[in-house]
Amino acid sequence: MKYKVTVAYDGRQFCGFQFQPNLRTVQGTLTDAMRTVLGDDCTVTGCSRTDSGVHASGFVALVDAPHSTVPYGKLCRAVNCVLPDDVALLSSEMAPEGFHPRYSAKSKEYEYLINVSETRNPFSRGLVYDYCRELDAGKMCRAAADFAGEHDFSAFMSAGSDINDTVRTIFGCNVTRRENIVAINICGTGFLYNMVRIIAGTLVYVSEGKIPDNGIPGIIESGDRSLAGPTAPACGLYLKKVNY
Amino acid sequence: MKYKVTVAYDGRQFCGFQFQPNLRTVQGTLTDAMRTVLGDDCTVTGCSRTDSGVHASGFVALVDAPHSTVPYGKLCRAVNCVLPDDVALLSSEMAPEGFHPRYSAKSKEYEYLINVSETRNPFSRGLVYDYCRELDAGKMCRAAADFAGEHDFSAFMSAGSDINDTVRTIFGCNVTRRENIVAINICGTGFLYNMVRIIAGTLVYVSEGKIPDNGIPGIIESGDRSLAGPTAPACGLYLKKVNY
Repeated sequence: MKYKVTVAYDGRQFCGFQFQPNLRTVQGTLTDAMRTVLGDDCTVTGCSRTDSGVHASGFVALVDAPHSTVPYGKLCRAVNCVLPDDVALLSSEMAPEGFHPRYSAKSKEYEYLINVSETRNPFSRGLVYDYCRELDAGKMCRAAADFAGEHDFSAFMSAGSDINDTVRTIFGCNVTRRENIVAINICGTGFLYNMVRIIAGTLVYVSEGKIPDNGIPGIIESGDRSLAGPTAPACGLYLKKVNY
Repeated sequence: MKYKVTVAYDGRQFCGFQFQPNLRTVQGTLTDAMRTVLGDDCTVTGCSRTDSGVHASGFVALVDAPHSTVPYGKLCRAVNCVLPDDVALLSSEMAPEGFHPRYSAKSKEYEYLINVSETRNPFSRGLVYDYCRELDAGKMCRAAADFAGEHDFSAFMSAGSDINDTVRTIFGCNVTRRENIVAINICGTGFLYNMVRIIAGTLVYVSEGKIPDNGIPGIIESGDRSLAGPTAPACGLYLKKVNY
C-alpha cells in the first residue's frame, strides 16, 4: 500500500528532514515509526529537504509499505502512538497512481515568522525569529510583491547547492502583522537552497532601510547573492502546505 | 529599590516557582539573574507558588534590591539578557509602598488549555493538556457558572495543604473554544492547592457525562474531594494575571 501522508513537526530537535546516519532526522524518525507499524520493508519519501531547525505544519510524504494491511484512514492513530511528541501525522490517504511528493508538487507554501516584540516570548523560543525590534510590515509587503513572477533567483540562493536551473516562479509573497508577529508568506513552484530565508533577511533589510523598497527587481536582475540581505535564522521558517 | 515585575515563563523545565535546593525553579533562576544585575543582596518574592510544569504569562514578583541604581524602566532589558530563554521579564515598575505580590493581590486569573484535536500538536507539547477527543464546551460553560460566588471549596483541594480557611470567592468561570483548543478561564480572590486543575478535571467529567451539568453546587456543598473530577495535568495551566 502507498500512503500519502501529511506531517507536522517541530524542527528544534531535528537535524533537518533528510536521513543522516547517527543524527536525529525527521525522515529517520518517521521511517522507524512506520516500520514498527507497517513492516520492515517500508520506505518514506519526503516532499522537501528542510534544514536543521526548520519546522513544518503541512509536510507531505509518500509511505510505500508493500506488506501493509493497515487501512489508509487508520494509519494516523497507529503511527502517532509510536512517534515522539515533536512530530505528528495529520492525515493519511491513498497515494494517487504515480504520485511522488516532490516531483508531483505544483507549488509549495512557506511562512516565515518574526517576533517584533521587545521581549522574547518564552513559549515560542526556537519557533520564531526573535528580532525583538519594530519592523515596517507595510513597507516589507510592498517590496515583497516584486518577488512574484518567473525569475532567475540566483541572487537568493546560498552556495553549496548543485542545482543548474535557478529559474523559479513565485505566485505571491506578502507580509502581514498579527500582534507581535510579522509573518512573511510565500508560494511558488519551488525554492532554491535557503531561498525563503534569504528573502526574509532581504525584507528585514528593506524595513531597516539597508535596501530600498523598490530594490528587489534590481537584486533579482543582478544574480548577485551579495546584494541580497542575510540568510534569516532557520527557526522562523515553516513549510505550510504542498499543492498537487 | 523595590521593583514590581511581571514575568512570563514556560514551566516545562522548571520544578515550579518556589526555590528548592539543587532543583531548577523559577524563583531560583530569577534570583540568580537579579543578583547578577542588581547585587548579591537582592531578593525575589512571588505572587504564588506554581507547581512543576505550570506556566505563567503574567506572574508578578517583588524584587527588593537595597543597593541597586538600575532605573525601573531599564530593568527588563538588562535582566532579559541574563535570563535563560524560557523565562522573560515583561514589565518593571516601582513597587507601591507596602506592596506584597501575594498579600496585596485582589484577584488572580488562571487559564486552563485543553487540546481537543484528535492529533496532538507538535508545537504545543507540554503547553496544553492533550485530551485529543471532543469536549462539549457549551455544557462545560453552563456548569462552570456554578463555581461563581463565595464558597467553601474543600471538595476542590488536593491533600497536602496546611490551609485552614478553605473559603474563596470566584468572580467568574467560563469555557470557550478557539479552533482545537478549549480554554477554561477563572478569576477569583485566591485558589486552594490544585483547585484550578481539579475544576478543569471536573468540567471534563461534566462533558463526559460522568458528572451531571447541574452537579457542581452539590459537590461544593458536600466538601468531598472524591465527588469532584480528577486533577487535570499541570501542563495545561497558566497564571495569566494578578490584579491589585
